[in-house]
Amino acid sequence: MTVWNQVTIVGVGLMGGSIGLGLRKRGLAKQVVGFGRDQKILDQAIKLGAITQGELSLSQAVEAAELVVVCTPVDLIVEQVREVSRLAPKTTLITDVGSTKQQIVQELNGSGKGIVPQFVGSHPLAGSEQSGVESAIEDLLANRVVVVTPVEESDPRQLDRVIQFWESLEAKVVKMSAEQHDLAMAEISHLPHLLSSAIAASTNPEFLSLAATGWLDTTRIAAGSPELWVEILLQNRDKVLHSLAQFESTIESIRTALENQDRSSLLQQLEKGKYHRDAVGS
Amino acid sequence: MTVWNQVTIVGVGLMGGSIGLGLRKRGLAKQVVGFGRDQKILDQAIKLGAITQGELSLSQAVEAAELVVVCTPVDLIVEQVREVSRLAPKTTLITDVGSTKQQIVQELNGSGKGIVPQFVGSHPLAGSEQSGVESAIEDLLANRVVVVTPVEESDPRQLDRVIQFWESLEAKVVKMSAEQHDLAMAEISHLPHLLSSAIAASTNPEFLSLAATGWLDTTRIAAGSPELWVEILLQNRDKVLHSLAQFESTIESIRTALENQDRSSLLQQLEKGKYHRDAVGS
Repeated sequence: MTVWNQVTIVGVGLMGGSIGLGLRKRGLAKQVVGFGRDQKILDQAIKLGAITQGELSLSQAVEAAELVVVCTPVDLIVEQVREVSRLAPKTTLITDVGSTKQQIVQELNGSGKGIVPQFVGSHPLAGSEQSGVESAIEDLLANRVVVVTPVEESDPRQLDRVIQFWESLEAKVVKMSAEQHDLAMAEISHLPHLLSSAIAASTNPEFLSLAATGWLDTTRIAAGSPELWVEILLQNRDKVLHSLAQFESTIESIRTALENQDRSSLLQQLEKGKYHRDAVGS
Repeated sequence: MTVWNQVTIVGVGLMGGSIGLGLRKRGLAKQVVGFGRDQKILDQAIKLGAITQGELSLSQAVEAAELVVVCTPVDLIVEQVREVSRLAPKTTLITDVGSTKQQIVQELNGSGKGIVPQFVGSHPLAGSEQSGVESAIEDLLANRVVVVTPVEESDPRQLDRVIQFWESLEAKVVKMSAEQHDLAMAEISHLPHLLSSAIAASTNPEFLSLAATGWLDTTRIAAGSPELWVEILLQNRDKVLHSLAQFESTIESIRTALENQDRSSLLQQLEKGKYHRDAVGS
């Protein structure tokens, strides 16, 4: 098991804080440095044990880092990774936790100006409707999938180190292309988020006091940060729109069945939903 | 506190079984008789402590009942309540747990043939995607809302007894008209169920292995019984279609915002969803 001398976390929120706690709990890093803009949050992260040291200067945060994990909102990742690569030693490995990958990987691992070869894209499929380092937990990644999105040009040793990093936090790593990742996420994460939000938004507020388990479960993720999600949805816009069109056609069939009191067609739709749901488990 | 000599539960599944367990745990009924068609389920219910006695004959199940709670699927409730009223003493109070109320109350508390004046409609807003007496829990109704739907002609003493019954199981009782109930449920329960199911149904199965918390929460109720839900949706068809139309117009705005990369309009929709969700709590 590798023990890192220093891992730097850029953006110490729910995910960054949980990675820090996970590293420290398992003795995987001697130093976990947190970079952020708010001293109070850094102090809180130290107090919670998520980082050993807080830095308001990115340059100081990364100058001795072996690994930098960028945990900012998706629209800031490209810029932040470039900044890190400019300030950190050339050997420093960089990864991220962004929920979208195609745009980020294109800009950082494509060809042309501003590419960062020592960057390997990651996306841990874990999180919650909560946010902030105060919600961080040391086992957030345990038994969760982390998607890693190497390109043909990725250095196999760097890729291995990133994979080992996530596995050391007890995650299961799945490799796929950034495009395939975004296609899958549009369907399994981004569209469900959008729809959960739409259900909550379209509910007449006068009935909210009658909400029971069904509404509560179905709309739980609608409590997530609108600011973070707008950026995710915009970055993966084409694929989300594609998945939305499929969903709308399902809704169309269901509406027609309901209008025509077509019991067997309605049953078929509900059974298909249950079949997919039961396949996944709780 | 009233202690009933005998409460009879018609249909001993998740809800019927939980009512039985709740009554017995709290010492609220000397006898809890379960009526059903399957001796094995009745035996299991006795073993679990949900009923004290199982009956395959409705006549024997209700002949000494002070209260009968009909817990069958919604499409069977009217017929079953009429049958109970024919077989039970005239003083026996009858209620149900159906998720739709307008059609049931119209047929049983309206005017004309087949009305049952000693019937008071109820709907406990509790349940889960599970079913069967093996999932019954004694506190299923604790702190949950039970909607009671009296009509002008309801006997106030019978209404009081039904309200006290639900309150003795620690539920909070809300009175409203059957129509108002169905309107509210279309929005807060039936449509969310339909949509949760549609999300699960329209997800490409090849991506299911990547499902994380968001998809899992949003589609949890899609695991519910398709047979039970088809009947609920058909009984409350007009109001569900009305709520669905509202939802479709929300989706339409969201899609347009996404197509136009209209960040502020998208943000507004997500914020509205979060606002409604946060108002309800976990």
